[in-house]
Amino acid sequence: MSKEFKYIGKSVPRVDAVGKVTGQTRFITDEYLDRMIYAYPFYSDIPFGKITAIDISPAASQPGFLGVLSASDIPGQNQVGVIIEDQPLFADPLVRFIGDSIGIVVAETESAARQAARLVNIQYEEFNPIFSINDSKAATGNFIHDSNVACQHQVDKGDINTGFAAADQIIEADFKTQFQEHYYLEPQGCIAIPEENGGITIHGSIQCIYYVQKAVARVLGIPQSVVKVIQTPIGGAFGGKEDIPSELCARAALAAVKFNRPVKMVYNRRDDVQLTSKRHPFQIHFKVGVSNAGKLLAAHIRLEENSGAYATLSTVVSYRSSIHAMGPYVIPNIKVRSTAYYTNLPTTGAFRGFGSPQATFGHERMMDIIADHLGIDPVELRLKNVLRPGDLTQTAQKLEVSVGAEETITSVRDRSSWNSLRQNNQNDRRYLTGIGIAASHYGNCLGAAGWALDGAGVKIQIRRDGSVGLAYGLADMGQGALTVITQMAADALGINSQRISVLAPNTDLVPDSGPGVASRNVVMTGNAIRDAAAKLEPILKTAAAEMLGTDAESIKIENDLIFVDDVKKSDFNILADYLFVGNSQMDMLGWWHVPALEYDPVKGIGEAYFTYSYATHVAKVRVDRLTGLVFVDKIWAAHDIGKAINPAGLEGQVEGGTTQGIGWALTEQFKFDRGRVLTDNLSTYLLPTIADVGEVETILVENPEPLGPWGAKGIGEPAIIPTAAAIANAVSHAIGVQMNEIPLTPEKVLDAIEGRTH
Amino acid sequence: MSKEFKYIGKSVPRVDAVGKVTGQTRFITDEYLDRMIYAYPFYSDIPFGKITAIDISPAASQPGFLGVLSASDIPGQNQVGVIIEDQPLFADPLVRFIGDSIGIVVAETESAARQAARLVNIQYEEFNPIFSINDSKAATGNFIHDSNVACQHQVDKGDINTGFAAADQIIEADFKTQFQEHYYLEPQGCIAIPEENGGITIHGSIQCIYYVQKAVARVLGIPQSVVKVIQTPIGGAFGGKEDIPSELCARAALAAVKFNRPVKMVYNRRDDVQLTSKRHPFQIHFKVGVSNAGKLLAAHIRLEENSGAYATLSTVVSYRSSIHAMGPYVIPNIKVRSTAYYTNLPTTGAFRGFGSPQATFGHERMMDIIADHLGIDPVELRLKNVLRPGDLTQTAQKLEVSVGAEETITSVRDRSSWNSLRQNNQNDRRYLTGIGIAASHYGNCLGAAGWALDGAGVKIQIRRDGSVGLAYGLADMGQGALTVITQMAADALGINSQRISVLAPNTDLVPDSGPGVASRNVVMTGNAIRDAAAKLEPILKTAAAEMLGTDAESIKIENDLIFVDDVKKSDFNILADYLFVGNSQMDMLGWWHVPALEYDPVKGIGEAYFTYSYATHVAKVRVDRLTGLVFVDKIWAAHDIGKAINPAGLEGQVEGGTTQGIGWALTEQFKFDRGRVLTDNLSTYLLPTIADVGEVETILVENPEPLGPWGAKGIGEPAIIPTAAAIANAVSHAIGVQMNEIPLTPEKVLDAIEGRTH
Repeated sequence: MSKEFKYIGKSVPRVDAVGKVTGQTRFITDEYLDRMIYAYPFYSDIPFGKITAIDISPAASQPGFLGVLSASDIPGQNQVGVIIEDQPLFADPLVRFIGDSIGIVVAETESAARQAARLVNIQYEEFNPIFSINDSKAATGNFIHDSNVACQHQVDKGDINTGFAAADQIIEADFKTQFQEHYYLEPQGCIAIPEENGGITIHGSIQCIYYVQKAVARVLGIPQSVVKVIQTPIGGAFGGKEDIPSELCARAALAAVKFNRPVKMVYNRRDDVQLTSKRHPFQIHFKVGVSNAGKLLAAHIRLEENSGAYATLSTVVSYRSSIHAMGPYVIPNIKVRSTAYYTNLPTTGAFRGFGSPQATFGHERMMDIIADHLGIDPVELRLKNVLRPGDLTQTAQKLEVSVGAEETITSVRDRSSWNSLRQNNQNDRRYLTGIGIAASHYGNCLGAAGWALDGAGVKIQIRRDGSVGLAYGLADMGQGALTVITQMAADALGINSQRISVLAPNTDLVPDSGPGVASRNVVMTGNAIRDAAAKLEPILKTAAAEMLGTDAESIKIENDLIFVDDVKKSDFNILADYLFVGNSQMDMLGWWHVPALEYDPVKGIGEAYFTYSYATHVAKVRVDRLTGLVFVDKIWAAHDIGKAINPAGLEGQVEGGTTQGIGWALTEQFKFDRGRVLTDNLSTYLLPTIADVGEVETILVENPEPLGPWGAKGIGEPAIIPTAAAIANAVSHAIGVQMNEIPLTPEKVLDAIEGRTH
Repeated sequence: MSKEFKYIGKSVPRVDAVGKVTGQTRFITDEYLDRMIYAYPFYSDIPFGKITAIDISPAASQPGFLGVLSASDIPGQNQVGVIIEDQPLFADPLVRFIGDSIGIVVAETESAARQAARLVNIQYEEFNPIFSINDSKAATGNFIHDSNVACQHQVDKGDINTGFAAADQIIEADFKTQFQEHYYLEPQGCIAIPEENGGITIHGSIQCIYYVQKAVARVLGIPQSVVKVIQTPIGGAFGGKEDIPSELCARAALAAVKFNRPVKMVYNRRDDVQLTSKRHPFQIHFKVGVSNAGKLLAAHIRLEENSGAYATLSTVVSYRSSIHAMGPYVIPNIKVRSTAYYTNLPTTGAFRGFGSPQATFGHERMMDIIADHLGIDPVELRLKNVLRPGDLTQTAQKLEVSVGAEETITSVRDRSSWNSLRQNNQNDRRYLTGIGIAASHYGNCLGAAGWALDGAGVKIQIRRDGSVGLAYGLADMGQGALTVITQMAADALGINSQRISVLAPNTDLVPDSGPGVASRNVVMTGNAIRDAAAKLEPILKTAAAEMLGTDAESIKIENDLIFVDDVKKSDFNILADYLFVGNSQMDMLGWWHVPALEYDPVKGIGEAYFTYSYATHVAKVRVDRLTGLVFVDKIWAAHDIGKAINPAGLEGQVEGGTTQGIGWALTEQFKFDRGRVLTDNLSTYLLPTIADVGEVETILVENPEPLGPWGAKGIGEPAIIPTAAAIANAVSHAIGVQMNEIPLTPEKVLDAIEGRTH
């Protein structure tokens, strides 16, 4: 890794910055097509029941009304469940949450479609709804699906009874985390265009173009090869555009086929919040046996998730939270059960971290409670147990390289002056101050449970004029992927980054590269770039050698120049033309697939992920004694990302993730009234503002992962994972009460300070 | 070639038939985009001169006028010459023909743009124009470009003086062929869309998407990688959409960038005829030495072409006509000069056959004149000299295989009852009858002169559901390529053709595959399909073997089924899913490049083309003694196409080509008045109608070419090449006068019958 690169490792400005700052970037709402019509869903306004009648006559009398489509209009399968096949595209006859779409209205204008959708009159036979995990568990009949359990994953390593018997202390605690709404700036939207061959072209704000391709083909009953999905610029997603676009696009596509016209569907904010998925609320029980010296000996962990009405990505959340349940620590004996329960609420699905922030809230609060019990400093307790090279994870996976957990802990400890701040509270009459730490790990990419989908490609096209097109299959949803891809490709090929144009993801361009999720982009696309560049290298060098009358071994391509034995002889423009006239291959598919993982899904033992990112956050907080308001003065965020491809971009990710973590910890309180969302706009759902976010200091720990591109690992999700736990630990430290449930609203904090319990 | 295929060799119905018959197919004129504006060219209305002033004020006062763009607005190069760099995008300051575009008007509506374009007022200093080849040759100054010679190609084999000295007879003759207008049903049109990254997306009726990509990048001064060109369905082209779309698209792209809005430009018929290229008129001189036994001993051939104001594809026409000058015959000594001369007329460029129909008119009229001189039957004379395996062509290229020339001659001879019809004229009081024959050969693909561009690719994408996408880089301009590609791909992969969807050609999908011309499609795309299938075969078989617990050698994939040792075990759907979950490569680039050709361009000696198609037509005509009208009662058309992929499609091509040949021979008389086209609509430019076309009997000669896909060679151009010569020979036979100039208008024929000369 000692080689100096021209782009990799540099804080190259974002390639998409100008378009986004000037407003030139065209999002899906900016697009209008000739003869385009509009669709809008109408949906259940009861949480659970059975449709008995649908009266469309009030809608049909609206000017511009074209028609209504519902379950009976589907030519293929009425099914959009992404992993478990439990979710109809249109409810029929059961409705399972307020927001369960029953059909769409199609109209000549967007306002007519929305207006008419509100006028469709549905009659129901109502059932008793279930909203909580506990009610869902307790139900003995009237199940939401065949049973109320959406899915379960488990880990069983060693023997917890032996572990507990050997322990000096056994400590138990319960934790709770809340819903979180993605609140991407751009709501869900797409346009579906019918094609002459019976196919469909979809444009939309879509994380996972291949998921949409599959869903649309299935619903319409047409081959995947005639479904083309093109990603428009994404105005934020955070996982919220993983599965939901499949519903949206399949509905729009259905209308496009029926009316043989392009169909646009964009949710308004209120419906976007009511209809789309959220972060799973968890309730968590920990029972941990430790030695007096602070060694973790055994843990029995129960994670329970509110899945909402359909499973969507619950299996991923349940799997991931089970694997990460005890955090980045060595523990010989562990039993984990992570179970998602159906309720009559909107679905919970993919959200930055996929259950890891929740699991981390559990294990990191637990570590502080243990530290408190044992009278050991929280940093010390973590360092006694933290995973180091050669250690086994909780799934008995041996970690060999790129294990930067310890360094993330010690670096935030040192940078934050932990020891002095922890021991010397700077309380005054108004504020109680505290400092808290939380460490986490994050399995990169899809892991053993998603292995089959865990390949991704790029296509590099060298043009005769020396310009280069690069197609990839994942998503830039704001995280800066385009910039990092450009950096990696430029250095991989030895050319100027200005030569490279990254094409919008399009199912026609690159083979199915799986979903644009799980912090996969840098690792997967980067490795595919390495693969393509490695395949191109001999072609380029052979041609250059032929052109310059030498042998390929003496050729070096760097900085846009062609060197023979380190003497500049030509440039890439000339080489590109030479490649063309000499019939050299100029179009190269690069591909990378996560290596085979040995994993036993029954016991939850083995190689759960091929590598892990590590992060530790320290939060310094002030708690207002009078109001219970918590101010996060500073977060020190250390991240082992293997190798920083773009340090400024990484800082941006960490600051963004931390901010979202602050929101989840403190301000974002998602509320329902019997299944109806009450917090469906920014006046009621409080995203953190700049006033809520103090300083964030990012510390990049580079512990190269040999299987990562140039050593890099993922950052997208790790950025949010430890924040809330660090804040809760800091608040607990400040007020001297273990705060085991987020969000830490002023009321809750004030009650804790004043000794009231709920 | 004995293997029985499921699709190859079968008359599979056209996959694009329903869309075209029902009107569902959307051509570029059917497309409207949001915020789209319109451009229209204004052009020189004098044939030769210098612009002294441009007054746009009358145009600018039109409602909807947005602006005018001309040479000074071009950010890149003002150059669209496709081979020779002699053609500005916008004339500045010289104008060289009526139709030389000076700029474009941009307006809010199409009618406003057209209206305003007519109101731009240009002042000129006028020069003396040149319209004929002879005037162009004779000019001693005031050249149209640096000189009046656009280009020249030559063949020099053996020693013609020795040849002539050994000859018993030396026969000379002159021939003339006329302009021909493509008269595609759909006029030139495109839409250019500005992209956020400074790039451009072009949709249009375009034969050569990579030419357009290059031209647009050059004119705008942007990298090729940000220029995406997508082919819309083509409503006919015949070569007329090879180079002209580069002008059109570059102009629209310029406007798109300047106004940052999508720009549509579609020519109306009048301007399409005035502004775009035609078939080169030739004047031809032959001097041939023969033995009394009818053996060709020496030829000196002069081909002279009217290139119009710019060279465009003249080099290709000049090259190809020089190579084919003496036809499919053995000749030991030959000297050919083929020269294109600039004139102040619209350009002549690519047109079905690229100079071969003209060259064939020359050599086949010449063969009949020789036969007449020697008193040998024309068929006999041809059979005495025709190329057979082991013979050398006029460029001394040794032909080894797939030389079906003789069989095409003997088969039309036999089918047409040549001997009886030739000897027994069935004249009556009203009609003179005659029968004529013409043979030809046609070098497949681009030949030695265009070798660098003569590669082409396909991308085959197997989807997880077993459907297959296929991208290619050439063009279906009506000839049925989509159907034939589907047939070849289905048999190559052993799957049902219904699985395959052919994607619209798009520069992002397939590497630069050269131009969609020169009857290249079946050969190039077919071979690329073979390459992709050959690369996929071991992947598919290995996966199938793994899936079925056997070894790859025992697997056979046929008829959509997977066989193990000839026992059906699974199907392609299951295999596709298995490929996906097993991380097999499912996306394959196939590529084929014409093999290296040894060719000396100075002497015109060597491997001019990698293989040749052969064709012989016999025409049976009646000539109306009173009116001079010629009726073609029947054409027997024998074509050696190597292997018939789709016999019905081939018949369609032959019938279409023959019809176009009849038009060129008889009805199509393109007329100018001092450079202004007089025949700019169907009431004045007489395309043959169904009343002008008698029976066409197609005879397919299968003489497999090992380098062709499944043995196939090209048909698109051979279909037209011998027709006019056969008709002229038949008319000459009927009236007993050598008719050496087309079109054979009634006036001309009547004059010949009545002994008048022009």
